[in-house]
Amino acid sequence: MLVDNGLEILTECECIDLLAQAHVGRVAVTIGALPAVFPVNYALMDGSILFMTGDGTKFHAALRNAVVAFEIDAFDPLAHDGWSVMVVGMASEVTGADLERARLVPLRPWAEGDRRHYVRITPEIVTGRRIRHVASTS
Amino acid sequence: MLVDNGLEILTECECIDLLAQAHVGRVAVTIGALPAVFPVNYALMDGSILFMTGDGTKFHAALRNAVVAFEIDAFDPLAHDGWSVMVVGMASEVTGADLERARLVPLRPWAEGDRRHYVRITPEIVTGRRIRHVASTS
Repeated sequence: MLVDNGLEILTECECIDLLAQAHVGRVAVTIGALPAVFPVNYALMDGSILFMTGDGTKFHAALRNAVVAFEIDAFDPLAHDGWSVMVVGMASEVTGADLERARLVPLRPWAEGDRRHYVRITPEIVTGRRIRHVASTS
Repeated sequence: MLVDNGLEILTECECIDLLAQAHVGRVAVTIGALPAVFPVNYALMDGSILFMTGDGTKFHAALRNAVVAFEIDAFDPLAHDGWSVMVVGMASEVTGADLERARLVPLRPWAEGDRRHYVRITPEIVTGRRIRHVASTS
């Protein structure tokens, strides 16, 4: 087990398992030179992160074929325990034949409003960490 | 109530109330031209987001007096409900007289390892959204 400053480093398999189980993640993008984070409900398609947007900021940022970070996590404030997984990759709008397949994915926006566009993040880097509490030996 | 594409816009007061109640948020930074998101457990000090880091990537990124985004959220996957708050501001290491005060804040890193440095994010922009389900009128 690899440990980085008290955090257990998850394997890529563990990260992908966690990505398959979660429903909401956060997309970090840059808008007008400022960082911004947007939560999205998502699903996986061919190992990519798939979510829906409207013609808003989030969508336009994603459309620029920007490299974005996508993060999921879960923490227990009582146990001081938890994990996080981060995916870094190119965001792009789903078009053409892939769009037909995307429409078959069980994914609907939780919020009302116009979110008809499918955006995917193709993972280039997948990393994860888990807080690891070691029993004191003293 | 202001609504943006199906999302209720929270007032700054609501955002600050939510920031005071949560324990974990995510800091979005840029590292080597790539976006990255790091979860941190945090507390508030004088309206700033306060968290602890070691001499790692997160800390060094924060030290550069970079503008970062900080995000908290909570979502209910069954009700398809939830909210998020985002703070954008300058990150800086806490030093001098403020360091003494930071040490009095009830904040300890959840993970083991060396996280002796206090970093604060001074909010410049505070925004929040809540998913708003409207009963169908048809």
